[in-house]
Amino acid sequence: MWKQTLKLIQPVSEAWLEKARNRLDSLTKPRGSLGRLEEIAARVVAVRQEERPSIEKKEVFVFVGDHGVVSEGTSAYPQEVTGLMVSNFLKGKAGINILGRAAGAGVSVVDIGMKETFPGQDGLIKKNVRQGTGNIATGPAMTWQEAERAIGVGIEMAERAFSNGTFMVATGEMGIGNTTSSSALLSALLPAEVIDVTGLGTGLDREGLQRKVQVIDRALETNRPYMGDPISILAAVGGLEIAGICGLCLGGAARRMIVVVDGFISCAGALVAMRLKPEVKDYLFFSHQSSEKGHCVFFEKEGIWPILDLGLRLGEGTGAALAMQIMEGAVKVYNEMATFEEAGIAPGA
Amino acid sequence: MWKQTLKLIQPVSEAWLEKARNRLDSLTKPRGSLGRLEEIAARVVAVRQEERPSIEKKEVFVFVGDHGVVSEGTSAYPQEVTGLMVSNFLKGKAGINILGRAAGAGVSVVDIGMKETFPGQDGLIKKNVRQGTGNIATGPAMTWQEAERAIGVGIEMAERAFSNGTFMVATGEMGIGNTTSSSALLSALLPAEVIDVTGLGTGLDREGLQRKVQVIDRALETNRPYMGDPISILAAVGGLEIAGICGLCLGGAARRMIVVVDGFISCAGALVAMRLKPEVKDYLFFSHQSSEKGHCVFFEKEGIWPILDLGLRLGEGTGAALAMQIMEGAVKVYNEMATFEEAGIAPGA
Repeated sequence: MWKQTLKLIQPVSEAWLEKARNRLDSLTKPRGSLGRLEEIAARVVAVRQEERPSIEKKEVFVFVGDHGVVSEGTSAYPQEVTGLMVSNFLKGKAGINILGRAAGAGVSVVDIGMKETFPGQDGLIKKNVRQGTGNIATGPAMTWQEAERAIGVGIEMAERAFSNGTFMVATGEMGIGNTTSSSALLSALLPAEVIDVTGLGTGLDREGLQRKVQVIDRALETNRPYMGDPISILAAVGGLEIAGICGLCLGGAARRMIVVVDGFISCAGALVAMRLKPEVKDYLFFSHQSSEKGHCVFFEKEGIWPILDLGLRLGEGTGAALAMQIMEGAVKVYNEMATFEEAGIAPGA
Repeated sequence: MWKQTLKLIQPVSEAWLEKARNRLDSLTKPRGSLGRLEEIAARVVAVRQEERPSIEKKEVFVFVGDHGVVSEGTSAYPQEVTGLMVSNFLKGKAGINILGRAAGAGVSVVDIGMKETFPGQDGLIKKNVRQGTGNIATGPAMTWQEAERAIGVGIEMAERAFSNGTFMVATGEMGIGNTTSSSALLSALLPAEVIDVTGLGTGLDREGLQRKVQVIDRALETNRPYMGDPISILAAVGGLEIAGICGLCLGGAARRMIVVVDGFISCAGALVAMRLKPEVKDYLFFSHQSSEKGHCVFFEKEGIWPILDLGLRLGEGTGAALAMQIMEGAVKVYNEMATFEEAGIAPGA
C-alpha cells in the first residue's frame, strides 16, 4: 500500500508558489511584513493549488500505541496510563480535545498498537496492528510486515479525512515510553549521537535520563543487524503510533493535503516519511519546537523553522492544534486582505 | 486623569498565582508540560482573580496618529497612507480586521492624532488630540498637556471596554513614521544606543536607515532640554498613538484587565507605561517578537519572552490578535482539562 502512495507524492508546484507570492506582494501591507504567515499562506496555496484555499475543516489523528521498552524503566509513568488517557480523550477532557475544539478541529483517536483496550471506549477507531511493541532493548519493536501495516493505517486515516472533504490533518500521539523509541529513531535516521537527541520525556530525573540513554544505546546495538532502509529501522526501534504518523504524512501528501506535524514523537514519524520520500516535506508544516532535548537537533539538521516555540512537551497533537490557528489566520489574510489597487494606495517599498 | 489611574494599579495577587499553579499541577498532563501556556493561564487567573476566567470577549484598539518627522524622509511610505489605511480598516479589509475576526476580537479604530481625516470614515472613534506631531528632529513632538490628553484617550478606551464587559484588550496602531518615534523613545527609556534600536520600519533601504539613525540622534539632541520624566520624554520624541497605547496599558491594568501588547511601536507605548508604574507589567502580555531591529533589545533589557516569533512587522495589532488565540487556548485548557482525580490516574512525575 505505502509503495503506491509514495508514487503519488509530487513536489509542490513552483508555479503556484510564484502566483501566491505575487498576490501577497499586492496586498495592503509592506512587502514581506507578514513574515512567516506569508510563507505559510504561499505553501498552502501551492499544496492545494487553489486561488483561495480553505482550511477550515481540520482533523487531528491521535495514534495510540504501547512500548515494550517501558519494562526497562525509561518512563516516569506506568504503561496503564496509555489506556487511561485514551478514556480521557474519548470523554473530550484531555488537552488535545480542548485545543482541538479551540482550533475548530475534530479529534480522532486511533488504537494502532495499544497493549489492552478497556471496555466502554466508544468512539475509539480500532486498527490495532499489534498489542504493543517488543522491548527494543532486547530485540526488534515489530516485524517489517507490522510496520507496513501500521503505516497503512496512517494512510487509511488520510484517505478517510480526504473523503470527508477535510484537507488539513494533524498528527498526534499517546503512548507511554514513546520518547525512547523516537530518540532511537532520530539517532539512527538523522543521524545523531544518542545523547544529543535523548531528553527527559514526561518527567525523568537525571538518573532516569542516564538509564534511558543506555537503553537506547543497547536498542541500537541489539537491532543493528536488522536496520537497513527506513522501514526496517522503524520496525527495529520505532513504535506503532510513530508508524501511523509516518503513514498520515505520506497519505496526506499523496492527496495534496496540509499535514501539520506536532512535537518530538511526531517529528520521528515525519522523519521516516521524509526518508522514504523527500518530497513529502513540502506538505508538512512543523507546528512547534518542544522542550524535549533533541527536537532542536532535528530542526537544525533538517533545516526547519517550526511555527511556535512555547516549551510544550505534552504531545497528543496539542502543539499542532495551536499552530493550526496561526495557519488559518495566515490563509484568511491571504484570501481576504484588500490589494493596494482595491484600497487606492500606491504599493510603496 | 492618568495620575488617578496609576494609583489603582496593584501588583497581581501572589495567592491567586499560587492557586492557579496548584490547579495546573492537578491536570492530566505531566507537570509543566504545557510550558508557556501554563504561565499564561496562571497569570490570567491572577489578573482576573477568577476560578475559571473567560477571555472570549476581546477588543483590539488601533490608535492612529501622524508624525511630523516624515518630512525628514525616514519612512518608505508617504503620510497620506495613514488615512488610506484607516479607510481600509473601516471597510474591514486590512490585516487586523481579518486576524481580529479570526481571533473573535472586535476592532476599534481611534483617531488620536491624524493630520487629516477623510469624509466617509464612519465608525472611526474621533478623539483627535492634535493633527499630527511636530517634527522631532527640530523640536518636541507635542506639549506635555497633549501627551497627558492622549494618554487619557487610551485610558478612556480601556474604560469603554470594561463597561462593555470586555476584560481582554489589545494594542494596535497605524501611523506612517512611527518606528522613528518608537526607536527614539526606546533609546531614551531603556536606555540603549540609537543604532541598536533603529530598524528598517516598513521597508527602508540601507541609506534610508542611516538617515533615520541621524534624524533620531538629532531628535534626542534637540529635545534633550525637555526630557526628564517618562511623560516629558513621550511628549518630546513620542507619538500620539504611542501615548494612546500607554494609556490603554495603564487603564487596562487599573481595571485588572488582560492587556495584549502588539509589536515594536506598541512596546514603546508599553515601556512608557512601565516607567510610570512598574507594576503595570504584571497585566501586559507581550504577543510577539517582530523582525524590527531593536525589538529584541527591548525584550532582553526588560526580561520578557514574547509569545510568538513569526517575523511580523506589520503592526496594526496583528501579532496581538494571533497571540490572543494562543492565550485563549491556554485559558480553556486551564478551565476544561480533567484532573488526575477525575480521570482516575495517579499523578506520576
